[in-house]
Amino acid sequence: MANSTFDPQSLKYNDAGLIPAIAQDSLSGEVLMMAWMNTESLARTLETGQVTYWSRSRQAFWAKGATSGHVQRLVELRFDCDRDCILMQVTQVGAACHTGRRSCFYTAVEEGQEVEKMKPLED
Amino acid sequence: MANSTFDPQSLKYNDAGLIPAIAQDSLSGEVLMMAWMNTESLARTLETGQVTYWSRSRQAFWAKGATSGHVQRLVELRFDCDRDCILMQVTQVGAACHTGRRSCFYTAVEEGQEVEKMKPLED
Repeated sequence: MANSTFDPQSLKYNDAGLIPAIAQDSLSGEVLMMAWMNTESLARTLETGQVTYWSRSRQAFWAKGATSGHVQRLVELRFDCDRDCILMQVTQVGAACHTGRRSCFYTAVEEGQEVEKMKPLED
Repeated sequence: MANSTFDPQSLKYNDAGLIPAIAQDSLSGEVLMMAWMNTESLARTLETGQVTYWSRSRQAFWAKGATSGHVQRLVELRFDCDRDCILMQVTQVGAACHTGRRSCFYTAVEEGQEVEKMKPLED
């Protein structure tokens, strides 16, 4: 199959112009977080190699780690068969989660109970 | 921290009553797909151990693999810090993707080009 030029606008965005983007640790395979991108944050991510989301709460670009130092460097970017979800392999510095945990997915459901599976990283 | 009882309604759903759910191969760590759930599909998934999404196109429950046989058995279910995204470790039978590929994330963006990284599984 011949490759074709990628256009960020060719992906499918929701009514708010956003697409979910999953960040996965490129070494461990751990899923770190899911956040949202618009066409411009996707373009910035590809151009700079620094993962940049769109913050729905702040309605602003969110260059991951710009204030915390917990940057995500892009290793590989893929999208799915429906072109409506992004998966990124990243190199994560420190904690991906604002709670100080490596991953945002630290709560499991076990036998009907919420169970915390991960502690915040030591500084 | 004391554990607390999990209530599917305690998660945060969008205006359509849906929450994104990521399926990850529990053995390889490969991210297989992302689809959507409502409270009832989440409850069914936990009760039956068979991953059940909500199909936005068909507006119906989507017991993964019910027709194709490519079922997803739930190994572990987690949710994120904002309680607005689900991550599942699953045992995937065959292809997760409707194209016959193991994962829906088979297209990478490399130097501005779309590159297919995965072929459909052999039957």
